[in-house]
Amino acid sequence: MTDRIPRSKDNDNTVEMGEARRDFVKQRTGVNLEHVGSFSFDPAITAGNIENFIGVAQVPMGLAGPLLVNGEHAQGDFYVPMATAEGTLVASYNRGMRLLREAGGVTVSVVDDAMQRAPVFVFENARQARDFGNWIDEHFDEIRQAAESTTRSGKLRNIEKYAAARMLYLRFNFTTGDAAGQNMVGKATFVACEWIKANNPMVEKYILSGAMDTDKKHSTLNTLHTRGKRVIAEATIPNALLKSIMGVDSETLFKMRSITQVGSFMAGSVNTGAHSANGITAVFMATGQDVANVAESSAAIMFVDVNAAGDYYISITIPSMIVATYGGGTGLATQKECLEMLGCYGKGKVRKLAEIIGATVLAGEISLSSAVLAGDWVTSHDALGRNR
Amino acid sequence: MTDRIPRSKDNDNTVEMGEARRDFVKQRTGVNLEHVGSFSFDPAITAGNIENFIGVAQVPMGLAGPLLVNGEHAQGDFYVPMATAEGTLVASYNRGMRLLREAGGVTVSVVDDAMQRAPVFVFENARQARDFGNWIDEHFDEIRQAAESTTRSGKLRNIEKYAAARMLYLRFNFTTGDAAGQNMVGKATFVACEWIKANNPMVEKYILSGAMDTDKKHSTLNTLHTRGKRVIAEATIPNALLKSIMGVDSETLFKMRSITQVGSFMAGSVNTGAHSANGITAVFMATGQDVANVAESSAAIMFVDVNAAGDYYISITIPSMIVATYGGGTGLATQKECLEMLGCYGKGKVRKLAEIIGATVLAGEISLSSAVLAGDWVTSHDALGRNR
Amino acid sequence: MTDRIPRSKDNDNTVEMGEARRDFVKQRTGVNLEHVGSFSFDPAITAGNIENFIGVAQVPMGLAGPLLVNGEHAQGDFYVPMATAEGTLVASYNRGMRLLREAGGVTVSVVDDAMQRAPVFVFENARQARDFGNWIDEHFDEIRQAAESTTRSGKLRNIEKYAAARMLYLRFNFTTGDAAGQNMVGKATFVACEWIKANNPMVEKYILSGAMDTDKKHSTLNTLHTRGKRVIAEATIPNALLKSIMGVDSETLFKMRSITQVGSFMAGSVNTGAHSANGITAVFMATGQDVANVAESSAAIMFVDVNAAGDYYISITIPSMIVATYGGGTGLATQKECLEMLGCYGKGKVRKLAEIIGATVLAGEISLSSAVLAGDWVTSHDALGRNR
Amino acid sequence: MTDRIPRSKDNDNTVEMGEARRDFVKQRTGVNLEHVGSFSFDPAITAGNIENFIGVAQVPMGLAGPLLVNGEHAQGDFYVPMATAEGTLVASYNRGMRLLREAGGVTVSVVDDAMQRAPVFVFENARQARDFGNWIDEHFDEIRQAAESTTRSGKLRNIEKYAAARMLYLRFNFTTGDAAGQNMVGKATFVACEWIKANNPMVEKYILSGAMDTDKKHSTLNTLHTRGKRVIAEATIPNALLKSIMGVDSETLFKMRSITQVGSFMAGSVNTGAHSANGITAVFMATGQDVANVAESSAAIMFVDVNAAGDYYISITIPSMIVATYGGGTGLATQKECLEMLGCYGKGKVRKLAEIIGATVLAGEISLSSAVLAGDWVTSHDALGRNR
Repeated sequence: MTDRIPRSKDNDNTVEMGEARRDFVKQRTGVNLEHVGSFSFDPAITAGNIENFIGVAQVPMGLAGPLLVNGEHAQGDFYVPMATAEGTLVASYNRGMRLLREAGGVTVSVVDDAMQRAPVFVFENARQARDFGNWIDEHFDEIRQAAESTTRSGKLRNIEKYAAARMLYLRFNFTTGDAAGQNMVGKATFVACEWIKANNPMVEKYILSGAMDTDKKHSTLNTLHTRGKRVIAEATIPNALLKSIMGVDSETLFKMRSITQVGSFMAGSVNTGAHSANGITAVFMATGQDVANVAESSAAIMFVDVNAAGDYYISITIPSMIVATYGGGTGLATQKECLEMLGCYGKGKVRKLAEIIGATVLAGEISLSSAVLAGDWVTSHDALGRNR
Repeated sequence: MTDRIPRSKDNDNTVEMGEARRDFVKQRTGVNLEHVGSFSFDPAITAGNIENFIGVAQVPMGLAGPLLVNGEHAQGDFYVPMATAEGTLVASYNRGMRLLREAGGVTVSVVDDAMQRAPVFVFENARQARDFGNWIDEHFDEIRQAAESTTRSGKLRNIEKYAAARMLYLRFNFTTGDAAGQNMVGKATFVACEWIKANNPMVEKYILSGAMDTDKKHSTLNTLHTRGKRVIAEATIPNALLKSIMGVDSETLFKMRSITQVGSFMAGSVNTGAHSANGITAVFMATGQDVANVAESSAAIMFVDVNAAGDYYISITIPSMIVATYGGGTGLATQKECLEMLGCYGKGKVRKLAEIIGATVLAGEISLSSAVLAGDWVTSHDALGRNR
Repeated sequence: MTDRIPRSKDNDNTVEMGEARRDFVKQRTGVNLEHVGSFSFDPAITAGNIENFIGVAQVPMGLAGPLLVNGEHAQGDFYVPMATAEGTLVASYNRGMRLLREAGGVTVSVVDDAMQRAPVFVFENARQARDFGNWIDEHFDEIRQAAESTTRSGKLRNIEKYAAARMLYLRFNFTTGDAAGQNMVGKATFVACEWIKANNPMVEKYILSGAMDTDKKHSTLNTLHTRGKRVIAEATIPNALLKSIMGVDSETLFKMRSITQVGSFMAGSVNTGAHSANGITAVFMATGQDVANVAESSAAIMFVDVNAAGDYYISITIPSMIVATYGGGTGLATQKECLEMLGCYGKGKVRKLAEIIGATVLAGEISLSSAVLAGDWVTSHDALGRNR
Repeated sequence: MTDRIPRSKDNDNTVEMGEARRDFVKQRTGVNLEHVGSFSFDPAITAGNIENFIGVAQVPMGLAGPLLVNGEHAQGDFYVPMATAEGTLVASYNRGMRLLREAGGVTVSVVDDAMQRAPVFVFENARQARDFGNWIDEHFDEIRQAAESTTRSGKLRNIEKYAAARMLYLRFNFTTGDAAGQNMVGKATFVACEWIKANNPMVEKYILSGAMDTDKKHSTLNTLHTRGKRVIAEATIPNALLKSIMGVDSETLFKMRSITQVGSFMAGSVNTGAHSANGITAVFMATGQDVANVAESSAAIMFVDVNAAGDYYISITIPSMIVATYGGGTGLATQKECLEMLGCYGKGKVRKLAEIIGATVLAGEISLSSAVLAGDWVTSHDALGRNR
């Protein structure tokens, strides 16, 4: 019996090849992948999304909403599909959405937009690297032309420069339309670097990533300069509403924040909020996003205030939300349906989706932080979750 | 028409209620959730995993392997299910697995194990907080007893103390058997805190999380003191093999690491490796893990060396891998199958699973870092992915 | 003419050798080091403090106070010598001291105490490194005995363990009496490591510093686990007093903090306070501390609150204040006088000094943060400084 | 007896007033500040540098060199004055200078230059803050004009923008000639902000520092975008020389770096080198720099390599070296002499000084890292220091 996974050179994303591989798994491990093999679409649509296709993970999906969004692109009520296996998660976000809707909804804004590839160039010494940096500035237009020759939707916005030792680390910032764009900018930057190499006699060696794109990795640099969309969701919640729905008051919540900020700082945490990763992951899984980007997208900055009337201003800033409504997994069967139910499938929709996710996250923040204070955090997991 | 999502008080995780909610979505948005409604299991099994169940996300799954693991719990060849929509991901991990197998396999070790809840206690001044810390040390046995009274598998290992201002931040470290354990330790810590409050007259106020558990958030603290399992995967790859399969040599790879470490440091990146989040997310989705934990689990430390013979030692240290083989989503339909095909379903299996995931991650690290250097990074995305 | 700096093998810290070297400087550079050569003590006292002695830097010193300290070791009014060349610095700290004294003084506590040397041991693989860690725990008493054999005042408190790749990083924590102790613990750890090497057959290679002592470098690890003294200074300032002396009110100050915390987080700043380095450096220079430790000692955590009466609680937590009242530069001429005027020269005084410095820092924090808000920050530099 | 420190309204920086205050100290504490009162200059020169002048700290100064610098501004041999009380420090730097000189000297480059003040503006919501950011870009010329109206040497280079919640954090980057420039840019930014407030109707509230200047505080932002001068010092040291002078070889040093990088990363250290703070502090104290800036200036990035011939490339990148040759303490008695002996006093000299300090730091890095490996680290402190 071979240990080699079956594979068809010509046409591998088919029902037959999926079955052949599940049979192979059964032979090798004795396990019948019955449910994995239960899917409702033609595997041909997964070409470009998966290799060695064997079927699907069926991840439970719940519905939360209505979520009232006052965005520049998303406006009105939305019902949000959330895929997760964590009990209480949907219920908690749902509760937050109810509160925020009664408070008048969530104002969300996309304030920045950039996707990166960050090559590094190595020179004889630091001085040469510095001079190369000046050369880059002088030739920006040509570099942009080279980069953009590879893509219709990618636009080179600017190139950041970071110097250390005899290296110059560049960070190419692109806008990428409705795609997440990591591959698009990888290719564009590669072509730009080849142009640079061909035109600058000082350049002998470069590496296409010098680790300052921090792809699939959080970094302070992302928090500062954005990766994907920089999304800010805000709401002002009347204190009376907080008390009646959440059982906490604005002043107590505000003071708690002040104390947890210190814990967060000491820990060296990359997120001063409560649990944005939960909401982001659940919507990412439902809508065909690259879920590994939770690594970057889970960074957040919470800021709250109490206004003169005693009402609670709460905001979450997500500096690296990487989303797409086109390309990647967005066209897959359940994923496309979920995007469509949000009115977010296809071209011209990516900022709308970013706003909806931002608003969703805010709902989870107010819900969990209230629960921690009100003391019903543990009891709700007892009631709804697998806390047994 | 109501804007309220239908919900049954008695029995909500049913085929009928799922259908009722999909109908509701259709009424509200015009979208027919046909594929979302296509699942192969009885929704009753999702009780405790999801609220407002509407169906499933069908995430494409591919197969990678064989992966040769020399663990203390996982030993021999494994075929790894990976759920993702990112083209080339499975192929890239697969290539790394082939290389590592020819090199003799991956040595993986779980070197630490802890799950946290981190309450904060507030006092009149710093001195009182310090004295309270001493009291905690003196009463550790009683606190442990209180905490462990709530759980069969959770064991209180130790309590860390962090002082700032008039607060004392505690970090309760538990082992949690085969469960991930976040809820388990939340409840145990709550009961312990109530015991503390009842028995220490100085205590007036505490918050169950002072943000030093950094739940769903990366932190330097996690990198230092572990959250979940601390997993280290290592391999030594003959230089000849590197050259023939990857088209790069050990010395060049080693030098590249040295340069990217500087980029990583300047960026303030939380991961000095290549893209561990990709492999972790794909296996997490396939095996019913809490995928939001990618926020924490995506931190990593890469360390490489070239030995006297010119061979390449490569290792990845994952300080916060949060995994379970029991509880959470592990018993769901496709998820259980995937755990079973790894021989990792149920009690006594969690370290085995951690080892397999650790080895998987290492395969991805060597594959991507070679591709970046060999220059086939962009071209492979062109061939396999949606780089179009 | 030789380019070699004159040096006497037998007795180099003398008036004559200082003069010989100043003459040498004059020959080589044409500059007459008249003032550098003006000092008031016998250079013999600098043996062990400086090599190639040529004289002194005369750093201007100002006096601030009275500073009212409610410490466990420092109690009552103190006049604080501050050496600096930055106009307005002494005036600003002085203003803060006046405010704090009228508010009843500063409560200061030393809540932790540890000095480190952190060797790293390298093994064949991670599993061996982990087992070595267990061995360390089992042999702690013998290791302590070996370490403490080299010193009268150093006591080995505990050994932290951090695992990555095939290395185990240890962090030896000592208390060091009234000395800062870096050299003392270096020697003690060296002897301990040699004992370990002699007694554990697995050990082949270690490096005396694996960079986790972060000597002369700030680290999150220091903020978490203390380096030197962990000092917390606190005060509650009546709102009326704030308004009359500082021209700001507690609520406005509190809100400003909330906004600057966000800036501090985004920047990846290691200090959430205002400018603790100013006060620390000035007292360190005056009292013979190792001023390079400002690198570590300048980390700080500010926490403020407004109580029910509207009064302002302000605190500063300094997690890595490295101070000495014995050894190092504490016995030098002006340095000893300054320690004496604080009642802090010699044995049994180090916590008293830590408390006084902590209180001094708090005075500067309230003074500068008020000035920024009240708008007299720029104007005071115009009046007192070299802002011209 | 009054507790008030004597002060003259008219002329306070005088011999008499210094004496009056020392008498006051004697009355209050019983301590005779004999040495503090021994200085060699007219206190009038300290006006603008110190308030409540009482005398000087006499900090021992040693001489290191010759240091061979291949800078763009500093060229040839230099003798470096170092003020410190830490035994072995001067000897260690001296040893490194000898090695580097035999290796052909240190190439040093200043690759960036910026001093900041970073105000924050608060709006009704994030969208308004974003629009304000665009307004800033459009009015950059007028803002620059307003800023530069306050200073002859300060030039506004650019304004960075960072968005979070409803705030926009600006970071004004200036070049400041030969001054360190913190006060200069504070005033210039204040005037610019007042112009903005007067001309943009959206602006109601701003704070002159939103904590993103990270004045007297290290931050990742500084490491990325420079504060003061960004200085890179490099050298290539023949392996034979390393062995003969340091007793270590390039390969072993290189491998050690790789291991300590991991420790540095886990610790969350802000400096991947050995002890740059030591050299920086010692030269800062000698030459009249603002020593509190060690907080920022002590960050560093070390990068090393071994070339084909086996020789050792070593570099240190100091991203935030804040130095001046004009203003501040540079004109004081001993400080001016020390600047003069380096040929660095006054206008047009600041980059030369930065280069010399950068080269000095490199000498310390190679010296200490060799000592750690060669095992003579502890023994040298025994011989030269107060390790007794």
